Amino acid sequence: MISPKKYAKAAKIPPKGFKTSNDFFNYVFKDKEMIWMGQNTNHLHQDNKINDAMIDCVESREYCKYPPPEGFPELKDLVLNDLGLQDDFEILITAGGTESLYLCINNILEPENNMITCDPGYLIIDNFASRFADQVISVPIYHKECNYKLTPQLVKENMDENTKLISLIDPLNPLGSSYTKDEIKEFAKIAQENDIYLLHDITYRDFSREHHLVAKYAPEHTITIYSFSKIFGMAGLRIGGIIATPDVLNSVRSILINDLGTNVISQAGAIAALKSKQEWIDDIKNQTRKNQDIIKKAVDQVEGAFLPVYPSDGNMIAIDLKETGIDPQVMADYLIDKKIFIRQGAYTSKLFGDRYIRISFSVPEYQVKIFAEKFIEACDRLRPL
Amino acid sequence: MISPKKYAKAAKIPPKGFKTSNDFFNYVFKDKEMIWMGQNTNHLHQDNKINDAMIDCVESREYCKYPPPEGFPELKDLVLNDLGLQDDFEILITAGGTESLYLCINNILEPENNMITCDPGYLIIDNFASRFADQVISVPIYHKECNYKLTPQLVKENMDENTKLISLIDPLNPLGSSYTKDEIKEFAKIAQENDIYLLHDITYRDFSREHHLVAKYAPEHTITIYSFSKIFGMAGLRIGGIIATPDVLNSVRSILINDLGTNVISQAGAIAALKSKQEWIDDIKNQTRKNQDIIKKAVDQVEGAFLPVYPSDGNMIAIDLKETGIDPQVMADYLIDKKIFIRQGAYTSKLFGDRYIRISFSVPEYQVKIFAEKFIEACDRLRPL
Repeated sequence: MISPKKYAKAAKIPPKGFKTSNDFFNYVFKDKEMIWMGQNTNHLHQDNKINDAMIDCVESREYCKYPPPEGFPELKDLVLNDLGLQDDFEILITAGGTESLYLCINNILEPENNMITCDPGYLIIDNFASRFADQVISVPIYHKECNYKLTPQLVKENMDENTKLISLIDPLNPLGSSYTKDEIKEFAKIAQENDIYLLHDITYRDFSREHHLVAKYAPEHTITIYSFSKIFGMAGLRIGGIIATPDVLNSVRSILINDLGTNVISQAGAIAALKSKQEWIDDIKNQTRKNQDIIKKAVDQVEGAFLPVYPSDGNMIAIDLKETGIDPQVMADYLIDKKIFIRQGAYTSKLFGDRYIRISFSVPEYQVKIFAEKFIEACDRLRPL
Repeated sequence: MISPKKYAKAAKIPPKGFKTSNDFFNYVFKDKEMIWMGQNTNHLHQDNKINDAMIDCVESREYCKYPPPEGFPELKDLVLNDLGLQDDFEILITAGGTESLYLCINNILEPENNMITCDPGYLIIDNFASRFADQVISVPIYHKECNYKLTPQLVKENMDENTKLISLIDPLNPLGSSYTKDEIKEFAKIAQENDIYLLHDITYRDFSREHHLVAKYAPEHTITIYSFSKIFGMAGLRIGGIIATPDVLNSVRSILINDLGTNVISQAGAIAALKSKQEWIDDIKNQTRKNQDIIKKAVDQVEGAFLPVYPSDGNMIAIDLKETGIDPQVMADYLIDKKIFIRQGAYTSKLFGDRYIRISFSVPEYQVKIFAEKFIEACDRLRPL
């Protein structure tokens, strides 16, 4: 069993010069000049409708009241409509996708079970699973052979009779790999035939070129995790949701934590965000693709560096540095000194953390250009002789 | 062991006319004419500093970033200063006092332990404890003999060698009872001598005439739960915190859920709320006392009704209806039809729910007057012949 404390500690080692990890993040947050390419956040929103809705909510002082515990019905309907999952599904609004993941993992896993995740991946999922299950089977996927993703074939090879839950982060943080319709159907079949659950984390769905919901093929074996943090640009508002059939959701209800609901202002913003989505989404997607091309051109100039997955279907991409001889941690430290916040591989991998850095590119184009320039400069300066 | 599902279900039975409890709460939230005396929320704020800080935060769009995971250092310092607990203590900002309670109960209790709570009390605590401990010892305290509170004597009588955690809601929701300095010292002694923890929930502290922190007498055996929901009028912003010594807090850190932090706008509001507290707190406390007197006068006019605790040190009070023969649920239903939202006893008691209603009075005076009038009218009409 993987110790949750081990993960918690690994994720919290403060960068040099800071007493705590919290102090580091405070510095990164507060510095107005910092270029945020380290947390997959979205800095491209210019539309005022989300802001206006939240300001109206503040001015109404309605935040002095508790919201309905499972979310405003208007918001719940909007999310289900956004996914085309109106019929047969219910939704619970939560304080972010992370809380959603925790509740579902807590709910599904029994002590004798195991859960399948992948490495690289979103490590908090492994951490949560390790609290409730006997074993976390973290499948290495940083290979060309599997297209840098957890394939149906890999799941079949790694599952056993105690497997109860499979984590599908789709598109995958940190690599940007995603699934075809056929693969999604295959996962649905695996879940149905073995009576296990798929945890379909669709946080980066709206950045992808195409996207398919497992919930449509295996509704009773899928829990879909929704987030407002990325395409909607609302990471600091901590709002997300769990979508499942009523049976599954009733089970989750029995282990709820925040029975007093999710932030009222965040919900007002989320409602406006979904209502206005069609007005701004193309601009944001187009800009992220343009930004991704700028990164590609820079990486192509560096001998030994390459993009394992290109194009990425998320708003982040991994750059492999192994052949350059540059330690990803050293690269991250170099760039933070230049006020560019990125992530070393160890943040999203236990096995391949020495190979890559993760860059998110839903930031203004001029910032991506600064990154490109500084990245090339860093590779020149940091490369071992 | 008490089943968490049982609690979850009991708390979620929808009032008549509503399909789900969530729909009922949505109705109560959205109806602008509804008088909110059912959730201990605070509707008395008129100061603009909290609103202005949150609007500035919205306009800055800084909410697109993740905040530091444990809270902005400025906010953490302000809370510790507010309590005079700067030295030897640390704080973790969370998405509300409820999440704080969950994390601490999860962290402290082992399967062989029991936790002492009281009835009436805040039932989500019993629910959380039942998920992690062998037993929840819910001590009946709805008696004149113990002054309607969990006394040190009652704790001694009910604890055994497996007791690891004692819940002290202080002032107590729903009754408004609170503790003297001597009682707090006695609790500290019990905790130290038996090496057990006190969960000191001080959500209603700032409404009380006097208040004493157990943390000052038994720092290493106390976890203090802080909330911005009540005196600060920010219930719908879901923000609170856990204050403990570094050792205890490090242990809590190992089982964190929301590793991406607490809502950025809520934190901006909370910072402004603490900075401006001295400017508005007296007005709010004075108004709640005036309002409490209005309720007292109304209750005095009703034969058979009485206030178990008067004055209440919280922003809520219980009205005992037993001798009037009126079912608290019938009273709540009658008043909701008059657009007055209050709570039947069963919301905060498993043993005495048939005896009382709970009324919160941090609402404008004219609303309390409407309540007083309708309450007397209801007692006339609902009293059995």
